[in-house]
Order: sequence, then C-alpha cells, then structure tokens
Amino acid sequence: MSDNKRDQDILIDFTNSLEESIGPQHGISPADFASIEQATMETHGRLQKLKESGEIGFFDLHKSDTKPFKKFASRTREKFENFVVLGIGGSALGTNAIHSALNSSFHNSLTKRKRNGYPKLLVVDNIDPDWLEELLQTVDLKKTIFNVISKSGTTAETMSQFMIVVERLKKKLKGKWKNKIVLTTDGGKGVLRELADEFNLLAFDIPNNVGGRFSVFTSVGLLPLACAGVDIDSLLKGAERMAQRCAASSIMENPAYLFGALHYLADRRKGKNISVMMPYSSKLYSVADWYRQLWAESLGKRYSLDGKECFTGQTPVKALGATDQHSQVQLYVEGPHDKITTFIEVENFSRTVTIPKLFEEKEALKYLGGKSLNQLISTEMKGTEYALTSHNRPNLTIRLPKINAHAIGQLIFMLETATAFAGGLYGINPFDQPGVEFGKQFTYAKMGREGFEKMRSELEEKTANAKRRTI
Amino acid sequence: MSDNKRDQDILIDFTNSLEESIGPQHGISPADFASIEQATMETHGRLQKLKESGEIGFFDLHKSDTKPFKKFASRTREKFENFVVLGIGGSALGTNAIHSALNSSFHNSLTKRKRNGYPKLLVVDNIDPDWLEELLQTVDLKKTIFNVISKSGTTAETMSQFMIVVERLKKKLKGKWKNKIVLTTDGGKGVLRELADEFNLLAFDIPNNVGGRFSVFTSVGLLPLACAGVDIDSLLKGAERMAQRCAASSIMENPAYLFGALHYLADRRKGKNISVMMPYSSKLYSVADWYRQLWAESLGKRYSLDGKECFTGQTPVKALGATDQHSQVQLYVEGPHDKITTFIEVENFSRTVTIPKLFEEKEALKYLGGKSLNQLISTEMKGTEYALTSHNRPNLTIRLPKINAHAIGQLIFMLETATAFAGGLYGINPFDQPGVEFGKQFTYAKMGREGFEKMRSELEEKTANAKRRTI
Repeated sequence: MSDNKRDQDILIDFTNSLEESIGPQHGISPADFASIEQATMETHGRLQKLKESGEIGFFDLHKSDTKPFKKFASRTREKFENFVVLGIGGSALGTNAIHSALNSSFHNSLTKRKRNGYPKLLVVDNIDPDWLEELLQTVDLKKTIFNVISKSGTTAETMSQFMIVVERLKKKLKGKWKNKIVLTTDGGKGVLRELADEFNLLAFDIPNNVGGRFSVFTSVGLLPLACAGVDIDSLLKGAERMAQRCAASSIMENPAYLFGALHYLADRRKGKNISVMMPYSSKLYSVADWYRQLWAESLGKRYSLDGKECFTGQTPVKALGATDQHSQVQLYVEGPHDKITTFIEVENFSRTVTIPKLFEEKEALKYLGGKSLNQLISTEMKGTEYALTSHNRPNLTIRLPKINAHAIGQLIFMLETATAFAGGLYGINPFDQPGVEFGKQFTYAKMGREGFEKMRSELEEKTANAKRRTI
Repeated sequence: MSDNKRDQDILIDFTNSLEESIGPQHGISPADFASIEQATMETHGRLQKLKESGEIGFFDLHKSDTKPFKKFASRTREKFENFVVLGIGGSALGTNAIHSALNSSFHNSLTKRKRNGYPKLLVVDNIDPDWLEELLQTVDLKKTIFNVISKSGTTAETMSQFMIVVERLKKKLKGKWKNKIVLTTDGGKGVLRELADEFNLLAFDIPNNVGGRFSVFTSVGLLPLACAGVDIDSLLKGAERMAQRCAASSIMENPAYLFGALHYLADRRKGKNISVMMPYSSKLYSVADWYRQLWAESLGKRYSLDGKECFTGQTPVKALGATDQHSQVQLYVEGPHDKITTFIEVENFSRTVTIPKLFEEKEALKYLGGKSLNQLISTEMKGTEYALTSHNRPNLTIRLPKINAHAIGQLIFMLETATAFAGGLYGINPFDQPGVEFGKQFTYAKMGREGFEKMRSELEEKTANAKRRTI
C-alpha cells in the first residue's frame, strides 16, 4: 500500500483509556485485554461466518453498485428544487450524518448555483403535526421529489407521512403525483413493493440481509446522498479501505475491534455505563447521532444468546466540542466515574479562519489576535482531553486527516464493525431489536389495526382503572 | 385563582416513577420520600434565603422590565434581515430552546412576511472554522445585527467570533460597523463593557447575581427572543405563575421540588445515573438540550458543600419522540436499569393533520386512514410509557396544555428551581462550575495569553515525553 493511502487513514489514539495513563481503577490494563482474548477469537470467527454465509450483509456493502443511484441523481439534479426523505431511525440517521458532514451546514439556505445544482435535502423523521406542517409549507410540491423509505412498508410514522404527501400531490398534480415519488423498500415483499408494482412507481431495493441501522451504504443512504451531491464512490472506497483494516483478528491491529473492546471493558470491568461521542466539529455532530442508534439499539438487550437475562448496553451520548465545554464538561470532569469519552478530531479543516489583531490594548483579547479558529478549537480539544485524563476519566480520540467522503466512509464502517464485535463480547445479538416490537403492537392496537382487537381490549381494561398521581 | 388560569398550568404525572407502579426495586416509595423530609426543609430554607438576600437572582427574573428589549426589537424588526447571536453555553441554549419551541422550525426559510417582519435568528455557538465560515457566507453583513453575549467578556470562543465579525464589518462598512453590534454583558466591568464605553456601542446588562445557565430570562435570552418575535411578556407571566406554585415547601405541592426529589431519589436510592428528557414534539427538542446544560453543569460536582469528595451528577440525555423510538427505546426498555425518563407531552398541538384514507385495500395502511398525526404521536407516547412501565423503568410526564410562551415560561422556571433544589439534596453548590476553570486556563496557556507563561512551560514539559498509543 502506498504511503499516500495510509495518509488518508483515520486513526485511533487510545492512550488515555489505559491504566498507564489514568491508573488501575479506571484504566484498561493488559490483563483486561488478555481476559477477552478467547471471546475475541470466537467473535471474530462468528462474524466471519455471518459475513461469508451472507446472513449479515453490511460487511460487503462497499461493493454496492452505485451507478443506479448516480444515474437517478443526475436526472433529478436539475429537475427538482427539493429532495425529501420520508423515513425514520435507520432510514434517516445515516443520510443526515453524511450529508451534514460533507455538504454545507447551510446547504438548504444556499442558492442552487452554490449547491452545484443539487436539490435541497430534507429528512422527515417525525410525526409532530406542527413541525411536519411547517416543513411541508416550505416546499413547493411541484419542485419536490419524495423518497419514501421503509423496508417492511409498515412503519406507521413513514406510512402516515407517505399517505399525507400522496394526497397533497394528487390534489395539486392529479395523475402526475407518481413522478414525485420514489420508493426504497424490500425487493420482493411488503406494502410499498406492492404499491410500486400497482402504480408503476420507481422503487429501489434494500438488501434483505441488512438491518436499518447498518443500511446507510445501501439504497437507503446512497440514493439521497447521491442526489444531494455526495461523492458516494469515495464513501464506499473509504469503507472498503476500513474493511481491509478490519479483517485483522487481533484487537491491536483492528481499529473496530479495539473500539469495541475498549468500550466493553470500560463498561463491564470499570463500570462506565455511558459512552460519550464528542466530535470537535459541528459538521460531525450528526455522526454522533447516527452512532447513538447503532450503539443503543444493537447492544441494549435483555437476553443473551444463551437465553439468560443480562440487561446489557451502554447509553450513547452525543456531545459537541467546543460548544459542550460550556455545558457538559463540568459533569464529565467532576461527576461520577461512569463514562468513556470518544473525541473525534479533524486534523485539517477545509479552511483556515484567522482571528484578526484587534483591540490589542486589551490583555484579555490580545492573545487571540493573529491566531486561527483552527488553533483555538484544536487547543480546546487538547484541554478537555487533558482535563479528563488528569481526573482519571478514560477517553480516546478518533482522528480524521480531513472531513471528506473517504474518511467518513472509514468512520462509518469502523463503528458498524465495532458494534457487531462488541455484541459478540457482550454475548448478545447485535442485529435484532425485540424491545421495540411491543410499542409497535401497542400502536396498532390503539389505532385500530385489524387483528389487534384482543390486545386493544386488554390494554383498555388495564389502563381504565389506573389511578394517576399528578401535581 | 380562576379555573382558566389552572387550565393553562403545566402538570407533572409521576405515577410511573412510584413503587406502586413499578415495584420496590426501581420505584420510589413513601419511605424514600420521608427520608428526604429534613433535607427538603433545609434546602427550602436555604433557597429562600438565597432569594431574599439577592445572592441568587434567577428566582425573581419574571419581574424583569421587558420594555427595553421590546423597544429594541421594534427598531430592528424592519431594519435587519438577520439577528445573529454570538454566544456559547448559557448565552445560546436558552434562546435556541425558546425560539425553536415558539417560532416555526423553519423560521429562517420563511419569507420576511411569513416571519411577520421579524429577522431570521442564528445562534453561533461554536468555533469550527468550516461551519462558521459557511454560516457567515449565508448572511449579508449589511442587513445583519450581531448580538455578542458574554458576561465576563473573556469567553475565548465568543470573543474570537466577535473579533472576526468586527473586522469583516469594518472592511465592508467602515465606521458604521458600530451600528451592527449590540453587546450583552456585565453592567460594570469586563472587556465588553470597556469596549461599549470606548466605542459607544449599545450594550445591555446581565445582572451579576444570575449565572449563565439560569440567565435566559435576563437580557441574555429576552433580547434575541424579543427580536425574533417571541412574546416575552407571556413567557415571564408563565414563569411568574410557576414561581407561585414553587413557593410551596412540600414536595407534593411544589412541582419543581417533586421533579428534583424524584430524580435525586432515582439516582441515589435506585442507581439511575442517567436522566433522559424525551419530548414528544420536535419543537421542544431544544428544551431538552437546554436542560442538559442546566442539569449537568449544576449537579456534576466533585466536592460537596462540606468539602468532601462526592462525585455527584446524573448524566442528562436528550431524546426525541416519536423519532427515537427507532433509535433509543430498545435500550431504554431492555438495557440496564440505569435511567429515569421524563416525557414532555403536548396536549394540544396548534394544528390537526389528518391522515387521508388512501390505499384502503392494504390492511397495513387502512387503520391509519382517517386518523390524525396528533392521535398517532399521542398513541406512540403512551406506548413507550407503557413499555417502560411494564419493564419497571421509572418515568414521568410533564404535560403542556399547548406550546405557547406561557407554558414554556412555566417549564423553564420549574426546571431551574428543580435544579437548585436537587443541588440542596445532593449537598453541593448548584451555582458554580469549578471543573471548567482548568480547561479555560489550559487554553489561555497554550494560546499564549499573558500571565500564563509558567503554566504553558509546565504543560509542555508534561506532554513532551508522552508516549502515544495509536492504531
């Protein structure tokens, strides 16, 4: 491999999560690492099998054919002013994360020319009636394409949005509403697939061996991202590069395994039930939001693979540097010893913004003049890192050479693999989400879906006599 | 008091945090409440004293004179296209929270007419060079007023932004740059006060008995909010109404004390070191962000009032309903028993959005047709509440009759008082933030501020030989 390629690699600095930096009570020791050698080997083997058998598909998504997405993007580019995603959870978070990282944070406020002709991107991931109505009022339906994303076609939130949007389109455009809808769903089954066939709607497939929170490198993310002007090929090249690095079976050679192991050990051996992700970059804040779903939904489990109650799962927390130094860092430095913190550092921002020499007679401002915001944010990160470390709080840093599609591709793939690996250490299934089933059924029952009548009456009985305590 | 007034009261339903709902292992019992009776009385007395002596000022901010802010707002209304806050932490979060709650979520995308003539509002609370440059490029400096907010005038992030903006204004407008700047700072001292005097800049005072995170009802929040068209009088009336309710000394009569007590007991007696705030409303998500600072920075403390190490502080987490049902709820329902969750419910949204009857032959969609998003989001909240409760996870609901300034005023004041009260129960000082001092000094030293030369060389010595572990 060329040095140039290595130059583009993201890197994990884990010095400050180790015993040698923060002492034996809170730092990970060689013995801790040794204690999971067996589990690491087993997990590695299991993941290899899941990959090779094709049971779990996210490992190979860097091989996705991007042509259909780019072709669609080039068709929509000049034609539409707005690209609106109707989707929630895994159908929304990855797109948001990568779009925020790689496009202007004020993309939707730019002129079409400054957007290089690409449409505005809106991700509609809630059903708050006020918010949704406010949103719809900002877009001209005639100039908008709606991408409806649901693998099963039963997601109540997305389906409701879809029905509302179709009705409005019909009112405005009559039969032409169909040109404003593109579906992303299961290739063979489900309501959206049926509707695609019946109404001859354009539809993209979601591979059925990829779950929602691991799906950003499928049509789920690649279609909207291509349409918003993201270089999806570089994204996948980054993922591919990380996949090479993640082929290693040893924790000390595999960045994903290292990330997973540090978090597992911090949780299980050192009592850190909270995983903070704190990018020192406004543009990467949504990556932390995407990570929240990945980590929480994959690892938050009641039962282990052998059927025993285990109640696993760190709570992921997103924080933003430098902003949250004025909000969260007091707690992180002085509060309970219950966290492991991951900084995301950007080595080279796209721009250098210089602080001018002004008001030089003021001692409290003088030192800033002539420096850059780049220096300031970098220094502040080092300051927080130093403060945490000297208070024996484990922390690590993921360093990106710069924010580009290649680096983001690496980062996403690394965190996905880390999550799958951590699932193995915890001994749970990181690919299911049994705990949200009940909420869905509750909604079906209460909203009157056929087949849920019995549950409905049971629920009504239970809640009828509940005495509420209010003030 | 009239019934009408009570109708506008926000309400706490704490049924599901009690032993009678979720059992003795995780629920709060009468004995738990009894165990803090003495501490409640003492804390109540102490808070009364802090209020009456004027040492702590946030209790009485509903008496603030709003005229100067409204006058300024009416002057800027037609004149400016953008109102930009330069501020961080307490100078940003309250304004963001209330603006997001009460104005359109797409305020900045609306035409001036649809904004009722009020300017766009941008809150600049980070120093990421890429993000800041992108932001500045979206505003026409000639049509923009910058509100620089820092009590001390030494906040490195805000001062850097200020210097950058002043230089650009000077380049564009020469001597007229002064008309585009309004300062919000200490009434008597600090660099910004000096600059206000020297350059004859317009400046508003921050009362010196109010700390940053309790300051949204001072000029810090009221000025930008008035300028963005928020009814700041109703906001303060809401705060006043809640202040009346919070005069009670008993937990069962004082909503703030109840909130504080439930969280303290959940943490200290039941091991819930995480406080989730989950509004079922996109427009209230930023309130949870404001709460994050309030709760974390106030209660995250290493030392108690008697000087002993205590390491207190729940970690506040923001979550969004219904969105995060597809991200966090799996963990909240099945993961470790380490959380207490506060839902924020909106009884009446401003609008009813009906889901049309469409595709009625599809069983998976039929049940949605004819219902409303309002029903759907309300049902989903009840579903999550039910799921948490049946898994013995403590939760409570703050219910707002509707989202308006009066209700938000109540909510903010309630949470502030709850935080001050919880500080009493923990036995710490909720009004300081000693743990962030070090980070500031680190930045001064590394950036070369005068007087920090010794610290600088010490730090360089320490870090020079540090061996880094990277992969």
